[in-house]
Amino acid sequence: MAELSDRSGVAVPTIKFYLREGLLPRGEPRGATRSSYDESHVDRLRLIRALVDVAGLGLERVREVLDVLDSPSSSLHQALAAAHQLLSPAPEASPTEASAAAVAQLLAATGSAADPHGPHATAVAAALDAMHRAGQPVSDEGLVRYAQAMAAVAEAEVVGMTTEHRDGALTYALLGSVLAEPVLLGLRRLAHEDQSVRRFSG
Amino acid sequence: MAELSDRSGVAVPTIKFYLREGLLPRGEPRGATRSSYDESHVDRLRLIRALVDVAGLGLERVREVLDVLDSPSSSLHQALAAAHQLLSPAPEASPTEASAAAVAQLLAATGSAADPHGPHATAVAAALDAMHRAGQPVSDEGLVRYAQAMAAVAEAEVVGMTTEHRDGALTYALLGSVLAEPVLLGLRRLAHEDQSVRRFSG
Repeated sequence: MAELSDRSGVAVPTIKFYLREGLLPRGEPRGATRSSYDESHVDRLRLIRALVDVAGLGLERVREVLDVLDSPSSSLHQALAAAHQLLSPAPEASPTEASAAAVAQLLAATGSAADPHGPHATAVAAALDAMHRAGQPVSDEGLVRYAQAMAAVAEAEVVGMTTEHRDGALTYALLGSVLAEPVLLGLRRLAHEDQSVRRFSG
Repeated sequence: MAELSDRSGVAVPTIKFYLREGLLPRGEPRGATRSSYDESHVDRLRLIRALVDVAGLGLERVREVLDVLDSPSSSLHQALAAAHQLLSPAPEASPTEASAAAVAQLLAATGSAADPHGPHATAVAAALDAMHRAGQPVSDEGLVRYAQAMAAVAEAEVVGMTTEHRDGALTYALLGSVLAEPVLLGLRRLAHEDQSVRRFSG
């Protein structure tokens, strides 16, 4: 267990707690006081820490994600969708029909397989409503350009994902989703700064 | 003043407060109890509300932005930079030299006019460090792809900006910077969902 702690970076008392709670499968018994743990235990610990530290989930939510992941009948997509749904809080207000329709039309026009009634589509529609209310509506053309840029981002990201280990794939997807956000937003600010120097510093 | 309140959506007592504080210039006197306000007052009120409501700035910070904006010697770029700097809190820890160098190299390679020692470059470097610590470093190639996607976003955004009125331009830039963030991040999640259905739902 000391070795498992070293390799995963998770303290021994925390590992014992996860074992008691059933979040981490027991190791193979090796005598009366020792157990043997393998790579899958390291992956599982890293996933739990990503869910707790990065996604900010409580233990019950973590259990829900692991249950989907461990269900033999669920696809990796279903596990990813469950995890992402927990990451994306539902918007406070329902989106307007106009914005919901704009997002549905965007998905249809770009041949996206994403659910037009799912939580991400709803979140985008609600965010479009907020821009509309502030007097800065996004045009249909502007929305397509945004979507194309984000599709290029997602395509580059999914290339780096190995799906051999479901826990590892889920950790990669969760960490990447959350941790890359400030990188992307910061790069957008840098791009704005570049445009601003070029156009407005005269 | 009732008309100014109608057109700007800001309540009369709030307008009076901004006048007293010197954030909003006085109108042209029209008799003993009336003043005349023009489009510039509407623009200024919208900007103040954007700074307070969207950017979450306190009145002293609002005053700093307006001072830069109203200084005849400052360019629109300087006003935008001052506003964006207030929007982007400095990262908690200094970035590592490796990440700072990676961002500086990116800016040089893409011919960006953004400051490699500025707050946005520092924020990106610190975000790259966080990904590295989590075991998911971004490769140089991945960083270039991210930057290209965000440059396409920023270029599409700056096209919609009119610079005739400095207050209006600044409001557009500030609101756009902040309000478009959830749209972009939501579209990235939708693109991940699309990829996930295609690749992992079997």
